[in-house]
Amino acid sequence: MSSRVLYDLAAADPDVRFSPFCWRIRLALAHKGLAFETVPWRLTEKAAIAFSGQKSVPVLVDGEQTVADSQAIAEYLEAAYPDAPSLFGGPQTRALIQFVRRWCEGVLQAALVPILVPDIYHIIAPKDQAYFRESREARLGTTLEALAAARGDHMPALLAALQTLRVTLKGQKFLGGETPLYADHIVFGALQWGVKTSSTPLLAAEDVVTLWMQAVLDYYGDGVGK
Amino acid sequence: MSSRVLYDLAAADPDVRFSPFCWRIRLALAHKGLAFETVPWRLTEKAAIAFSGQKSVPVLVDGEQTVADSQAIAEYLEAAYPDAPSLFGGPQTRALIQFVRRWCEGVLQAALVPILVPDIYHIIAPKDQAYFRESREARLGTTLEALAAARGDHMPALLAALQTLRVTLKGQKFLGGETPLYADHIVFGALQWGVKTSSTPLLAAEDVVTLWMQAVLDYYGDGVGK
Repeated sequence: MSSRVLYDLAAADPDVRFSPFCWRIRLALAHKGLAFETVPWRLTEKAAIAFSGQKSVPVLVDGEQTVADSQAIAEYLEAAYPDAPSLFGGPQTRALIQFVRRWCEGVLQAALVPILVPDIYHIIAPKDQAYFRESREARLGTTLEALAAARGDHMPALLAALQTLRVTLKGQKFLGGETPLYADHIVFGALQWGVKTSSTPLLAAEDVVTLWMQAVLDYYGDGVGK
Repeated sequence: MSSRVLYDLAAADPDVRFSPFCWRIRLALAHKGLAFETVPWRLTEKAAIAFSGQKSVPVLVDGEQTVADSQAIAEYLEAAYPDAPSLFGGPQTRALIQFVRRWCEGVLQAALVPILVPDIYHIIAPKDQAYFRESREARLGTTLEALAAARGDHMPALLAALQTLRVTLKGQKFLGGETPLYADHIVFGALQWGVKTSSTPLLAAEDVVTLWMQAVLDYYGDGVGK
């Protein structure tokens, strides 16, 4: 096994990797030009990552170093590989990326949660389903079936969030300008979560947001791993 | 009169300057360390700015140069005064500021419009009121009175937008980091519009967003003009 391993959330199909936070790190590793392998990890496999002190992924094992939590991993990569392309740019860029991060987590991902959670239930490993149902229904205060039935009610908030991205990306190639920055990784992760789990497509093929997602993947090529 | 003049939207009281786009430019001028005077301008005074080719403010007259439209003025200032502190930072920062701008205009200002428009009607010059009512009622497809009655319905969208700012500003001094950038000017302008026109306070004194607004004003001191 490689000396650099990312524990990466997987569906029942181990090739379906859908965690928004793991996608951030896959892109961040590619951005730094760092080769890595992924280990498919399921939600109930707490024992497999107990060594990290965390109960969820991403967990990165980089040689002797173990780092968990996507933000901590990104900060670690930036500090440990200063000569590779910067994830954050300078201090001003780093500050502005925090705005994008807070928007992504508080608005875009928050809008995706009620839409995706019922769909995720159907693609995860059977052994994860009881845990997933119980934890998500408790957190959201409703049942998966009620969420699925109300899917249409949750679409306007998602469409509003996408609109902010659309008008921005009509005027520039990446959120970071001519090349992607960690802001792109953050937002890509959220939308890739939707691409990988939604039972109906959330973005049209010709949507400027879809084209940007493809441009991000094209930029890194094989670097994002399998 | 100074060789640098900003036509600035004013209420009936000429000391009340409430345009979000004019506030961007007042802060941008202060950021560049450029002294300027303002000319109070009312919405129906189209003839007074006809020389600019525009029908609305901000209009900046900088010596021989006349520039209208806030984004064009900011770009002009950045290009014309390259040795003064940068409004946009480098190309990555400039790109990320565009995201903040699109969010501010499409989400924050859009949330403020139905809340503020009925209040603005009551503070503008009497000669502006008929024009304001007609143009805004046509644009919004409703009456000022209906908007005022539905004020409470529009507050959740504003509170949601403010939340993105709050979580960001809890972790950093300015949107641009240790010092303000044009992203701060843009968002400040939107909220100053609310401060100057809302019939009820939209932000608590101890709100992190209020503290950030004060920090922006403190940073520039008298530079923002009267």
